[in-house]
Amino acid sequence: LKTVKTIVDGKYFQGTIIGVILINAIILGLQTVRGFSAETQETLHILDQICLWIFVLELIIKLWVFRLSFFKTGGNIFDALIVGISFLPAQGGLTILRTFRIFRVLRLVTAIRSMRIVVTGLLAAIPGAASVGGLLLILFYIASVMATTLFGDRFVDWFGSIGASMYTLFQIMTLESWSMGIARPVISEYPYAWAFFIPFIILSTFTVLNLFIGIMVDAIGV
Amino acid sequence: LKTVKTIVDGKYFQGTIIGVILINAIILGLQTVRGFSAETQETLHILDQICLWIFVLELIIKLWVFRLSFFKTGGNIFDALIVGISFLPAQGGLTILRTFRIFRVLRLVTAIRSMRIVVTGLLAAIPGAASVGGLLLILFYIASVMATTLFGDRFVDWFGSIGASMYTLFQIMTLESWSMGIARPVISEYPYAWAFFIPFIILSTFTVLNLFIGIMVDAIGV
Amino acid sequence: LKTVKTIVDGKYFQGTIIGVILINAIILGLQTVRGFSAETQETLHILDQICLWIFVLELIIKLWVFRLSFFKTGGNIFDALIVGISFLPAQGGLTILRTFRIFRVLRLVTAIRSMRIVVTGLLAAIPGAASVGGLLLILFYIASVMATTLFGDRFVDWFGSIGASMYTLFQIMTLESWSMGIARPVISEYPYAWAFFIPFIILSTFTVLNLFIGIMVDAIGV
Amino acid sequence: LKTVKTIVDGKYFQGTIIGVILINAIILGLQTVRGFSAETQETLHILDQICLWIFVLELIIKLWVFRLSFFKTGGNIFDALIVGISFLPAQGGLTILRTFRIFRVLRLVTAIRSMRIVVTGLLAAIPGAASVGGLLLILFYIASVMATTLFGDRFVDWFGSIGASMYTLFQIMTLESWSMGIARPVISEYPYAWAFFIPFIILSTFTVLNLFIGIMVDAIGV
Ligand code: NA
Ligand code: NA
Repeated sequence: LKTVKTIVDGKYFQGTIIGVILINAIILGLQTVRGFSAETQETLHILDQICLWIFVLELIIKLWVFRLSFFKTGGNIFDALIVGISFLPAQGGLTILRTFRIFRVLRLVTAIRSMRIVVTGLLAAIPGAASVGGLLLILFYIASVMATTLFGDRFVDWFGSIGASMYTLFQIMTLESWSMGIARPVISEYPYAWAFFIPFIILSTFTVLNLFIGIMVDAIGV
Repeated sequence: LKTVKTIVDGKYFQGTIIGVILINAIILGLQTVRGFSAETQETLHILDQICLWIFVLELIIKLWVFRLSFFKTGGNIFDALIVGISFLPAQGGLTILRTFRIFRVLRLVTAIRSMRIVVTGLLAAIPGAASVGGLLLILFYIASVMATTLFGDRFVDWFGSIGASMYTLFQIMTLESWSMGIARPVISEYPYAWAFFIPFIILSTFTVLNLFIGIMVDAIGV
Repeated sequence: LKTVKTIVDGKYFQGTIIGVILINAIILGLQTVRGFSAETQETLHILDQICLWIFVLELIIKLWVFRLSFFKTGGNIFDALIVGISFLPAQGGLTILRTFRIFRVLRLVTAIRSMRIVVTGLLAAIPGAASVGGLLLILFYIASVMATTLFGDRFVDWFGSIGASMYTLFQIMTLESWSMGIARPVISEYPYAWAFFIPFIILSTFTVLNLFIGIMVDAIGV
Repeated sequence: LKTVKTIVDGKYFQGTIIGVILINAIILGLQTVRGFSAETQETLHILDQICLWIFVLELIIKLWVFRLSFFKTGGNIFDALIVGISFLPAQGGLTILRTFRIFRVLRLVTAIRSMRIVVTGLLAAIPGAASVGGLLLILFYIASVMATTLFGDRFVDWFGSIGASMYTLFQIMTLESWSMGIARPVISEYPYAWAFFIPFIILSTFTVLNLFIGIMVDAIGV
């Protein structure tokens, strides 16, 4: 068992897995190409299945070697989930489930040490940013309710419901076509609407910048 | 009185208030939904009134417990104002006043300690950014007067008055459609207009970035 | 003379000047309003002239008090230039020169100490960013020559000359309509044009961010 | 030989080369001007050739002086490549190769010490950002495969292939027309497409900001 453990932790085993993930990524990419012959598609499907079974084998080996301590590592659970998805019966939301297979490429993040460190660092910094994140959520909720009440009747597509308003306000926060696309048409109906949009833009962009920089500063520990 | 004080400062009292704010937030959100029956709308209105009276009760208890020191906390005055707005007679600008009720959700910021700290920090950092903020205001005023004088005659919607110019320049500062939407049409009339827009963009984006980063650095104390 | 010096350096003198600048700013703003009666316009013009002469008087007093050391302060020379512009004969480029009067509001920056410090700090940080600025210039020049050579024949408005290309590339650097507005139409003619636009965007936005952050870090001394 | 070495390292030699690069830059710029007479074009071509031969001479001298240690400096190899390109036979992709001549202006970066330092610093900081860069690549690949599978059939121009999707996702990451231009049309066909676009925007903008700031912090050593 100890030998197997050494092998599993060794760089050859890790390297092989990274290689299989990369090959699988290429196969999944090729499967999006339109106009391949049925034969080629069949080959790609088989190759994809082989990759999948290698991942299953890897998980079984790790489970056998590490036993219950397997579940103590977040990365292992993540890997098991990613692989598990591929075995869900693909009925109904067929394309959606087939689409999820590409998440297997995320296994690169758990397989490559330096990436795991970066992601772990960023994830660990998120709780510290919870207050600013909560602030942003409150801002969005208030602004959505206001926009739906004020502009929802005449601009149904943009502000017809809380959901529609949240999407539109997210667009406005990213500054995408906020004025020529949204605010100017709204202002031509409600002349004082600028008093809603401009404070919202200032507050939301500032808060989101604060959130991003906060997480980064925490993660990198500048 | 001391027992009441302990209760008011305790986590159960605080938790209840946070709960009522959240429930009120959901009710106010549901009230934006079109097509509810008159009965449902009536129920929502009554639930909203109950939340409001719980807030009034909370304020009365706090006022009774803390007496004049109640007014020493900015958060309390803010809460009182937010609740007070709901009792203004809703005539004339009806929808506007109804809209203001959603600001009650902002009470979450005063009720949750970690958010109060973030917001207090940011507010405390604003005075230190007054110079850069003033600089930005001067830049906007100068650019608005210039744009109104130079382009106001032929582009009335965008630069017809100081107010219109300020709005358009704010749009330009956010880089939204500044070239294809505004500057190119203006340049086709006034070929040297680029000599106005490009320096304005450089100076304003740089100043606003300076302002944002300044406030953040002050607040987080990186 | 010493008394005059004390007065000139004192806060009442400074405060008066700041007041006159603010009043002048309002007058210059009002002069952009269309549809004032000839009488009102005349009054505004006279008030503007009074402000101007107060500035001239201020400069004469300062010149008398400080003699040659007047010219050792950058702010004084700046003030003198700003006021001097107003006496240039307004023939030919009439509106342009009238427009320049609004720069008098910039005197607020020299008159208010905290703003002077911020601006001096930023100006002092510019030389340190000269290398990155030079890099950006080289990038722009190379990209302009390339774009003019490659796309100039078919997209005359955007890339017909080095000047047109520089403007368009500035627009692209600000990410304004770069894809839907410029790159997609160009790519539909030259399929490999993405290999020009995407590296340009990455390099230019990164360099300009570097430039901005560099100046700020230098100025604030984080 | 030692004298030559002193001359080559001296500021007059360096200054002359910088001068020739600048003159060459102007010539290459003038060559983009449409409507010059055949004679002027001939003159420009000859001047360009003279500059090129000066560069060749410079390289020969340096090669003679420094021998094999010439190739130990990255800048020298870079200079040799830049100059070498100009001698490739200009058949087939004619304009492309002629366009590459403008890269000679990049020799300013190797010729001016302070710029060389900035660029070397930034290049040296890139390996440290490899993990975040890899993360961004993985994110782009996953999102491209997903978008091609989900939206490729109905939006061929935007998501018809992995390449098209990558370009469109790059556009979305820069926030250019992401909503009004791309996401809203897609959502009108696939109502849940926002659940793809909004997480992609949040993750990609955050990661790219992280990447940029990471390289800068490393390079400047704030
Ligand atoms: Na934008
Ligand atoms: Na846009």
